[in-house]
Amino acid sequence: MGRVRTGESVLSRAIRIFDAFSPDEKVLQVSEIARRTDLHVATASRLIAELVTHGLLERGPDREVRVGVRMWELASRASLTLSLRDAAMPYLEDLHAVVGHHAQLGVRDGDDVLFLERLSARDAVVNYSRIAGRLPLHISSSGLVLLAYGPPELQERILSRPLAQHTAQTITTPERLRAALAEVRRLGYVLTPGHVHDDAAGVAVPVRNGLQEVVAALSVIVPNDGRAAAQVPALMAAARGVTRSLSSPPLGVPPR
Amino acid sequence: MGRVRTGESVLSRAIRIFDAFSPDEKVLQVSEIARRTDLHVATASRLIAELVTHGLLERGPDREVRVGVRMWELASRASLTLSLRDAAMPYLEDLHAVVGHHAQLGVRDGDDVLFLERLSARDAVVNYSRIAGRLPLHISSSGLVLLAYGPPELQERILSRPLAQHTAQTITTPERLRAALAEVRRLGYVLTPGHVHDDAAGVAVPVRNGLQEVVAALSVIVPNDGRAAAQVPALMAAARGVTRSLSSPPLGVPPR
Repeated sequence: MGRVRTGESVLSRAIRIFDAFSPDEKVLQVSEIARRTDLHVATASRLIAELVTHGLLERGPDREVRVGVRMWELASRASLTLSLRDAAMPYLEDLHAVVGHHAQLGVRDGDDVLFLERLSARDAVVNYSRIAGRLPLHISSSGLVLLAYGPPELQERILSRPLAQHTAQTITTPERLRAALAEVRRLGYVLTPGHVHDDAAGVAVPVRNGLQEVVAALSVIVPNDGRAAAQVPALMAAARGVTRSLSSPPLGVPPR
Repeated sequence: MGRVRTGESVLSRAIRIFDAFSPDEKVLQVSEIARRTDLHVATASRLIAELVTHGLLERGPDREVRVGVRMWELASRASLTLSLRDAAMPYLEDLHAVVGHHAQLGVRDGDDVLFLERLSARDAVVNYSRIAGRLPLHISSSGLVLLAYGPPELQERILSRPLAQHTAQTITTPERLRAALAEVRRLGYVLTPGHVHDDAAGVAVPVRNGLQEVVAALSVIVPNDGRAAAQVPALMAAARGVTRSLSSPPLGVPPR
């Protein structure tokens, strides 16, 4: 167990196994995991057995496999991601209460926006993002904010590549994207009416840390009815609140 | 990279590295990680470098190491833990708004309660639990609930071992623990005045899934002033809400 036979590391294979799961497929059979990871069933079985031993995966009653609570613990306990989420959560709740629909917090990871949290009303307008879901940076309002304040070399890389299209409104030319990024920096917010889905409009603002670096995007998704800009002041106020929380000392919890 | 030299698997070592971090120490130097994991610095360095390559760890400006956002993503995207947390979150927020102080959601993992979520007021009474923190089952109100409805062999194992003590009120004898567990099952809730900390009282109730199995504990931590029992109805109502959410179909989010 744990030995590498073909040059690919055990860690790399283990990551492929975790990547086989999705929000819609939280439980998989070993054979399905082998298929999705392109590993031999015997290889996948051995690695899954070791991951189960460590609690990183768990088996259900019919030996089907799911992500274990221990994996969540290791990822969460010391996570700066979780600290950001915690600092933002009260403001996200207030936004959600005032705006209805979806309120979300996203960070940049590579060329994507990764959504750390999403609060949704049951009757909210459609939205493709999810908790721990990703969207390419140029597609969504959160992504445009994170790209606009991201490193220049990231912007040039994205601008030099084909831009995937979700709707007729999605930004797909480098000229339009460059103009949109300049506008985000000028205004401090962005609107994406119909960019991800025809019926929905995104509104996003940057969230800064105590050093005034942009570390996240706060966004709401509302119906695409021409009134999305009305949400900007509430978003900007919430983003300032998160910055204040990130700058202040943590809650007075005694050390364990 | 990824090869095993001494018989311990790469995965097992990687897990020890993640275990070196804590909520109070989210950023560590390589030398400190080596010390805590009892790995040679060279071995730790190589493994850390591979984990950084995969994004499971990240390096800060001075090459200090922290848990990466990719680790959080792999753990969260398909997590049943996160589904439970999401179902419980609105009810936890309502509880928190009504009770003030701390409201928390815990699940059993092995012989511990693992806290998935905690909402805290800034001026809340002291509390030792944390998000992704653990406490032994017999210590806290959440743990007693999870133990009371847990498998008989788990109860016998805990009852046959020495019970760690936090305060003069902590349950430390098998007789008292057995009586407490019977009382939880009879009443459907538990109070732990001063069991974890002299100044705090815990109140916990079981959360059931659609099959009426106990899957979590919902709890509040309030001042230890003899009035903790007043929180029981609000907790029970919230637990019923979580059960209803767990039993109902998920939000109508279109597939990606």
